Amino acid sequence: MAQRAGTLRDFTFRTSPLQLEAEWIVGFVDGEGCFHVSVNAHAEMSVGYQVLPEFTVVQHERDAQILHALKAYFGCGVVRRNRGDRLAYRVRSKEHLLERIVPFFMKHPLKTRKNVDFLKFRDVLLLMQNEAHLTIDGVDRIRAIAGKMNRGLSR
Amino acid sequence: MAQRAGTLRDFTFRTSPLQLEAEWIVGFVDGEGCFHVSVNAHAEMSVGYQVLPEFTVVQHERDAQILHALKAYFGCGVVRRNRGDRLAYRVRSKEHLLERIVPFFMKHPLKTRKNVDFLKFRDVLLLMQNEAHLTIDGVDRIRAIAGKMNRGLSR
Repeated sequence: MAQRAGTLRDFTFRTSPLQLEAEWIVGFVDGEGCFHVSVNAHAEMSVGYQVLPEFTVVQHERDAQILHALKAYFGCGVVRRNRGDRLAYRVRSKEHLLERIVPFFMKHPLKTRKNVDFLKFRDVLLLMQNEAHLTIDGVDRIRAIAGKMNRGLSR
Repeated sequence: MAQRAGTLRDFTFRTSPLQLEAEWIVGFVDGEGCFHVSVNAHAEMSVGYQVLPEFTVVQHERDAQILHALKAYFGCGVVRRNRGDRLAYRVRSKEHLLERIVPFFMKHPLKTRKNVDFLKFRDVLLLMQNEAHLTIDGVDRIRAIAGKMNRGLSR
């Protein structure tokens, strides 16, 4: 009983950084992660639209340390308040998504149908890498891909 | 491009059993799992109450194969329809919870605050192992523990 109480105390007051393993991250993101692409009208863009890809993990603020551990693992992104008592780990930089997030999930594939969304997300980023989002034709292609994402796969 | 399409096709039509790794399961359960104890009035029990511990993972029916892979991994439990288009992997047997589920999460600890719920869940099962749920005093102790579980930690 003393040992169990010790385990609980260590858990509650842990101050050292939480170490995450790749397969844990895959399982957690299979459950809680979201890959999303929004295409918004934007008058200041020459093509009239702005393409915003985003990787997000939302948690109750009690689990802030998990989100900070994800940020430390990937070495990019921010942890910000989402809504009410929820926090979000969020990566929006095209470079960070292409260089850190996408290669991680290519090496360690998601096991749920969320992988279908991830592969579409990757397609959009590869198009953006070739600057497709700066042409009308490219934005149409991206919009077609984005329209097939998150169709009832995420909550 | 041909390679990516191949990856997607393999994913969509996978027929071989899905192999899960321990750390993936921990991450997924940190996100999607639930440890719950209900204490219900039950006229046929000599003590007047029935204690029902339960480990559950709910998913959209599209990810049925994930739930069946969890069932295969733990070698216990059932996959049943939950509500509407959701399925649940569920373990209710006291023996299976004590011999398979609890030892797994003691060896591979959850990283979110869900671990606090898990440790209370384990306390209840250890009390049940000592037949505490068959005495009025024991049911009171279990009810006190169960009342502190799932307090806004799960959705």
